[in-house]
Amino acid sequence: MRLYLAGPDVFLPRAAEIGARKRAICAQHGIEGLFPLDVELEAEGAAEPIYRGNLALMESADGGVFNLTPFRGASADVGTAFELGFLAARGKLIFGYTSDPSPYRERVHAQFGPLVPGREAWRDRNGHAVENFGLPDNLMIAVSIAEASFGIHAIAEEGPDALAALRAFESCVAQIAARVVRRHSQERAHV
Amino acid sequence: MRLYLAGPDVFLPRAAEIGARKRAICAQHGIEGLFPLDVELEAEGAAEPIYRGNLALMESADGGVFNLTPFRGASADVGTAFELGFLAARGKLIFGYTSDPSPYRERVHAQFGPLVPGREAWRDRNGHAVENFGLPDNLMIAVSIAEASFGIHAIAEEGPDALAALRAFESCVAQIAARVVRRHSQERAHV
Repeated sequence: MRLYLAGPDVFLPRAAEIGARKRAICAQHGIEGLFPLDVELEAEGAAEPIYRGNLALMESADGGVFNLTPFRGASADVGTAFELGFLAARGKLIFGYTSDPSPYRERVHAQFGPLVPGREAWRDRNGHAVENFGLPDNLMIAVSIAEASFGIHAIAEEGPDALAALRAFESCVAQIAARVVRRHSQERAHV
Repeated sequence: MRLYLAGPDVFLPRAAEIGARKRAICAQHGIEGLFPLDVELEAEGAAEPIYRGNLALMESADGGVFNLTPFRGASADVGTAFELGFLAARGKLIFGYTSDPSPYRERVHAQFGPLVPGREAWRDRNGHAVENFGLPDNLMIAVSIAEASFGIHAIAEEGPDALAALRAFESCVAQIAARVVRRHSQERAHV
């Protein structure tokens, strides 16, 4: 099984090393992990080839494992969210994990200050409603994963590599191997 | 032509009014605007029906017009990004607009403090690389729109409804009407 390893990991100082570790964890469980293109973040005209390369990598995969750890705000990285929607629309397997186990509402509170009770919803300091479903992120993210697989896998992690969420990733991949890979191989054997 | 009106508008205090205005602007240009479900943000068990309702609305549309104004961070709303990836994967029309014309890198600087030059990229205070392509957001968001249509339409707007980006929306819809709707109608007439 080939799984695309989506996430903001590419923005970490040791991105290549993190990618290699995640691919190795996948390999230990009989999964081929596909890490997004090594990103050249400055080169002129590089954005389009990276975009097309990532789409091609996703098309070639059986699904994706999404690092949904919050990035520069209260939510997951938007590039990762785009890719989650892309693979969901293609009907491929989608799995998610994070190193931040707090519900979305608590995270907004922590980042933007106290929430104000409104008529239909709690609101942040800008008057914007805050989803209050007890979910780990915006419902499109959280529900897509919950309906397609077994919910966003969360294990708390601190430190400079917290964004990589390696512990949650390893646990998520082990669960995929135990619950999905075997079934997937059997189905392929019968084709 | 039926277009899904994606964006964080649903979180504004006057969401229903904003939605009605956007649908009216669409109607003036011969477009049927589909506003996401009126969101009940507290009701228990409401997340799944909202998710499925939004997917059904997207499936029924010819494409989407995406409000990519930054929401609770340096980037677009993640639910909106998910929907953008979803419609891109379905091969439908995608258009984008924002009330924040600043490049992504400047916005990260404004929100998180000075950036530090690194070996391959500028980095924020957490050491995370900052994309520096001169694009308005993460490349998956910006390039998908640029390749599919005519780039993210940006017109600066301030005040409590800046998140709705009504001026950029109106201008974007006018451009869709002038450049896409007529061709779309002609193609349908020939089917």
